[in-house]
Amino acid sequence: MAETADAGGERVVVLAHGKFPERAKTAVGVLKYSNDEIVAVLDRDRAGTVASGHRSDLPEVPIVASMAEAPEADTLLVGIAPIGGGFDESWRPDVRTAIERGCDVVAGLHYFLSEDDEFAALADEHGVALRDVRKPDPDLGVAEGRSADVDADVVLTVGTDCSVGKMTVSLELVEAARERGIDAGFIPTGQTGIMIAGWGNPIDRVISDFTAGAVEEMILEIGDDHDVLFVEGQGSIVHPAYSAVTCGILHGAMADSLVLCHEAGRESVHGYESFGLPPVPEYVDLYERLAAPVHEGEVVAGALNTRGIDDDSDARAAIESFADDLGAPAADVVRFDADAILDAILGGEKQPEGRSASGSGGG
Amino acid sequence: MAETADAGGERVVVLAHGKFPERAKTAVGVLKYSNDEIVAVLDRDRAGTVASGHRSDLPEVPIVASMAEAPEADTLLVGIAPIGGGFDESWRPDVRTAIERGCDVVAGLHYFLSEDDEFAALADEHGVALRDVRKPDPDLGVAEGRSADVDADVVLTVGTDCSVGKMTVSLELVEAARERGIDAGFIPTGQTGIMIAGWGNPIDRVISDFTAGAVEEMILEIGDDHDVLFVEGQGSIVHPAYSAVTCGILHGAMADSLVLCHEAGRESVHGYESFGLPPVPEYVDLYERLAAPVHEGEVVAGALNTRGIDDDSDARAAIESFADDLGAPAADVVRFDADAILDAILGGEKQPEGRSASGSGGG
Repeated sequence: MAETADAGGERVVVLAHGKFPERAKTAVGVLKYSNDEIVAVLDRDRAGTVASGHRSDLPEVPIVASMAEAPEADTLLVGIAPIGGGFDESWRPDVRTAIERGCDVVAGLHYFLSEDDEFAALADEHGVALRDVRKPDPDLGVAEGRSADVDADVVLTVGTDCSVGKMTVSLELVEAARERGIDAGFIPTGQTGIMIAGWGNPIDRVISDFTAGAVEEMILEIGDDHDVLFVEGQGSIVHPAYSAVTCGILHGAMADSLVLCHEAGRESVHGYESFGLPPVPEYVDLYERLAAPVHEGEVVAGALNTRGIDDDSDARAAIESFADDLGAPAADVVRFDADAILDAILGGEKQPEGRSASGSGGG
Repeated sequence: MAETADAGGERVVVLAHGKFPERAKTAVGVLKYSNDEIVAVLDRDRAGTVASGHRSDLPEVPIVASMAEAPEADTLLVGIAPIGGGFDESWRPDVRTAIERGCDVVAGLHYFLSEDDEFAALADEHGVALRDVRKPDPDLGVAEGRSADVDADVVLTVGTDCSVGKMTVSLELVEAARERGIDAGFIPTGQTGIMIAGWGNPIDRVISDFTAGAVEEMILEIGDDHDVLFVEGQGSIVHPAYSAVTCGILHGAMADSLVLCHEAGRESVHGYESFGLPPVPEYVDLYERLAAPVHEGEVVAGALNTRGIDDDSDARAAIESFADDLGAPAADVVRFDADAILDAILGGEKQPEGRSASGSGGG
């Protein structure tokens, strides 16, 4: 899938009925990080309010009840996903209206809009595209071990678990790098990242033999056009269900630098609570040693998600402690800033043990 | 997929045109290990000979030029796969004849016979089944971390690389265990193993999120019906392309014992020669530490493939050296026997370092 949409500039409506913002990860991600212009959010429960009224880190985008009330747009993006990835039939009128108004529709559901008879016929009639980003590219193949050949340095976010913020860390690092004038590219691997970036392979949906190959394909596609690539990691290398995806990304990316992402206080696998998380240094050692035979990559920094800690000074202490465990600088890129991590990546060298730095900018 | 066909007893013709026996891994595997009765091999280049005339470890099965000349049978099994997994059009008359004679047809190709218009219509007309074993079960899902709950002990073959003999080792261990009166089950994970066993999920073809889940599903299906399960491993944990599959099997199987498979003299990744293999002790440590957070499993023995070594005493020396590297007993289960490995598995304890034993029975 080409990086065409990365240029941005489209006018986009984001569907998030009944779930905005807390349970609308994709919608919030698109509002925060997309290069496109978000002109409205659809949430019939919050119509008449604005996105920034719900979360101060979001732009002042109006929330309306239906597509019929949305301003002119190029694209409707489905920004929520029910458990199981099904299509909620209450969304049908909005999708229908969008197509009739000439909008493309983008979705990351397991249910493919392009295979829905009504939508397919209507889209054909109105000359618009239905883009199911979880539908893998049929031309993918096995990795050839070539990702390290690109001009860009490759940075991969890896995790101690699912849902610790790897996508957010990757996107914040892209933004922070661009603010320093570095030509940074983003390699999305999950449906939210793909919808934000406007291109990409949904690694969790490709056939398992092509896991590494689907990452390599993206890196080869844009790796010579950027100075640094930030690859969105998935899962964890010791996850009972998802480690295959993590391992394929690790070897497919052939990253020069790894950023270990963790949530403060997380002690067991999310949703698999009988499985405890290993100690942080064990993760560092496992990721580095597992990567090494394919490509040497070092955990140069850590990203700690401190959303569960109320007090800023407690959060700073947690970051300091995480950095000590890592033997590398750490930061919370959302609560504070990404400077310490970016310095470690660009410095290209691990800080000496004990000389760890915490996120020091914001707060 | 139910283990129904495991009972065996069907009369099977195996197609292996132009490739028997050297380049017909599936055909040879089925001849050696299937519970079914193989009544003929199709190879137009070797018609008039018998399988045992080409390899002494194969049964005395006649080789004929076409399905029209084969004896009465229940099933035609496609026992070869061209690079890319395509269907060779020169096989079409044999598949057509088989269907017309009322045979089911089993294939492990990427090209699905059940989606071939001619074959689908003909199969429908004659009331036979077209079974594409690489077509994943649509009901698969994510792993729940439950494989360790089954009554059977679980043994997984892991490798230093692809094509070192993990399937053969698994099948030989099943046979050796059964000879000792142990109720051993086989968990196939690749198309050859599936075609031999008559059931199973093709792990390399499932979507990556379901890699571990597809292994767990099989273990839960038969794990309470056997004393020991031998799970066929795939790839290697440090393979540039296939490590995702390996990692998913490792965590999905939750094995109690691991058997590390290696080929004597192999120094780089097969087909990826710029990637060197790590030292054997590094594999042991990586597999054990990667497995541990999900389920503690120990490398209790090693299986060395010595096919590249002419002299038996040289082969024994290579096995001895491999056992020293492992700190565990080792054997070549094809050249000699599986006793040392089976003892280590059933003993449930690793031999003390230095007290390694080589395959000592046959030769």
